[in-house]
Amino acid sequence: MKLFVLNQSAFMATQLGLRSIRRVSTFCTSAKWEGGVSMVQGASRGIGLEFVKQLLEKNEKGHVIATCRNPDGATGLLDLKNKFADRLNILPLDLTIESTIEASAKSIKERYGSLNLLINASGILSLPDVMQPETTLSKVQKSSLLLAYEVNAVGPILVIKHMWPLLKDGGGSGTGRDVAVVANLSARVGSIGDNRLGGWHSYRSSKSALNQLTKTVSVEFARKKDPIICLLLHPGTVDTDLSRPFQRNVPEGKLFTKEFSVQKLLSIINNAKGHDNGKFYAWDGQEIPW
Amino acid sequence: MKLFVLNQSAFMATQLGLRSIRRVSTFCTSAKWEGGVSMVQGASRGIGLEFVKQLLEKNEKGHVIATCRNPDGATGLLDLKNKFADRLNILPLDLTIESTIEASAKSIKERYGSLNLLINASGILSLPDVMQPETTLSKVQKSSLLLAYEVNAVGPILVIKHMWPLLKDGGGSGTGRDVAVVANLSARVGSIGDNRLGGWHSYRSSKSALNQLTKTVSVEFARKKDPIICLLLHPGTVDTDLSRPFQRNVPEGKLFTKEFSVQKLLSIINNAKGHDNGKFYAWDGQEIPW
Ligand SMILES: NC(=O)c1ccc[n+]([C@@H]2O[C@H](COP(=O)([O-])OP(=O)(O)OC[C@H]3O[C@@H](n4cnc5c(N)ncnc54)[C@H](OP(=O)(O)O)[C@@H]3O)[C@@H](O)[C@H]2O)c1
Ligand SMILES: NC(=O)c1ccc[n+]([C@@H]2O[C@H](COP(=O)([O-])OP(=O)(O)OC[C@H]3O[C@@H](n4cnc5c(N)ncnc54)[C@H](OP(=O)(O)O)[C@@H]3O)[C@@H](O)[C@H]2O)c1
Repeated sequence: MKLFVLNQSAFMATQLGLRSIRRVSTFCTSAKWEGGVSMVQGASRGIGLEFVKQLLEKNEKGHVIATCRNPDGATGLLDLKNKFADRLNILPLDLTIESTIEASAKSIKERYGSLNLLINASGILSLPDVMQPETTLSKVQKSSLLLAYEVNAVGPILVIKHMWPLLKDGGGSGTGRDVAVVANLSARVGSIGDNRLGGWHSYRSSKSALNQLTKTVSVEFARKKDPIICLLLHPGTVDTDLSRPFQRNVPEGKLFTKEFSVQKLLSIINNAKGHDNGKFYAWDGQEIPW
Repeated sequence: MKLFVLNQSAFMATQLGLRSIRRVSTFCTSAKWEGGVSMVQGASRGIGLEFVKQLLEKNEKGHVIATCRNPDGATGLLDLKNKFADRLNILPLDLTIESTIEASAKSIKERYGSLNLLINASGILSLPDVMQPETTLSKVQKSSLLLAYEVNAVGPILVIKHMWPLLKDGGGSGTGRDVAVVANLSARVGSIGDNRLGGWHSYRSSKSALNQLTKTVSVEFARKKDPIICLLLHPGTVDTDLSRPFQRNVPEGKLFTKEFSVQKLLSIINNAKGHDNGKFYAWDGQEIPW
């Protein structure tokens, strides 16, 4: 039925000119990926790796592209590759080297032709001997501010920039959704309105910037009627390498497993509709103030 | 009367220990600047230069430190120097070179000992052949994102970091206010909640980051009971070099003169109280959503 409608509109499109034809033929291309094609950027560890796992396990037809800085050392991904050889594709991507983002886009275009979901799951909060979350203004360093911004805000936006044509071609086809989804992992501490504790200048600022950049992109997608929406997601406090050094003060029951958090976030993603475009949600579906 | 109270509490302080003594003796140091000491960072042109002018003209005892990248070429400041020789001090400061910020702090400490007002008036939106406000995601460049962040967000925060001890020592003394004020020039387009048009990715993102950083700093000042508050100010659309290339679509009557905008902003600054700390105000005193 759906295909018939498509063919009908493909016919109509020839009356309307090239622009419409392209839209329709594009749809046909991506329709061959029945379970949809998802990309998880920042997939070597933590929340990103868990997204890859659940996407492969919960959707037996879905294809997943997992990107990370060093595929050879990404043991969690290599384990999954053994189990899901034909549905998992691992590509090298370092957010700070734009050519690796472009190379991924080229490779995905050649192999899949389109994308239905892009999850930017990478992020940095601390790096031994390089940056630490600041406890006071007097410890704020230019180098940390710039590094956090480059990885947490600039990187994900460059990924969206290069994947944009693929997401436009993919839309929601094969996924049960109307639209392709870009899900950027933000953080509640990136909320300016909710900032009552202070500190963590570099991380907070980079996540506020990511929120603004994602909102800005979402406005353009809506204006151009592209079949893509953008979400900003706070996963809760999750037991990963990122949070480990700072878990001491987390109240009992408030430290989530990766499994729980990703299950919640995937449910938000899978149920997302056009009106969610540009919104900032916590793991439980509550909207977070900017 | 005020001095008597001070001397009384200076006496009390000796009973209470070193910490309190320091607070009181500090107050005495800065009290010698009857009209207060203000610093305007980014004072060579536009809104910053107008702040310097109005601060000197409207407060006949106030001292002003005007900083800019190239004092020798800052003709507007040099003209004011001819008129207000003993109350205007011009210092070199380039936001992208932290050592020039430190050198300014050292020089201000030696000459004045304290600060009562810091206005970060610098900012970049476009630079010929280097960066242009982006009209679409496909034009977003990493270099522009990083440059706007460095100048519009990182720079002002480093200035606050280095001026912090001076502002703490200055408080509101000599100004009629209870507190020292840090006023950072933000922009309505830095509001995420108010972003309906999209575009201008680098500038928007840098101003959202500035908002978050300023809010973060304001929380620490309040927690430490420092006599300093931080404001974020949107000047309106003002006729300066910054807005000139983009004035075509500004509705009639909505393009302000520098004189008008700075008059409005100075009134917000002069009337600021503790509860304004960490707030984001437009020229007309309306709060802007994050
Ligand atoms: N965990 C939490 O409690 C929590 C709370 C709020 C928000 N978040 C956000 O959730 C996201 C995932 O965090 P997580 O807890 O899973 O962190 P994580 O376990 O530390 O994993 C971070 C991931 O980011 C990748 N990454 C770092 N720099 C990169 C770069 N330059 N290029 C590409 N990838 C890079 C890492 O790859 P390598 O293995 O190559 O280093 C790793 O895969 C982050 O955006 C984080 O800010 C987490
Ligand atoms: N004009 C508007 O309509 C408008 C609207 C909203 C917000 N704002 C904000 O208001 C503030 C003032 O804008 P404006 O209109 O007065 O701009 P402007 O006329 O273009 O002046 C910009 C100032 O920033 C200085 N600056 C640039 N880069 C610097 C650096 N690396 N180190 C130190 N100083 C630097 C410039 O110094 P040089 O002379 O050395 O270049 C100049 O003094 C900015 O933060 C702007 O974002 C303006």
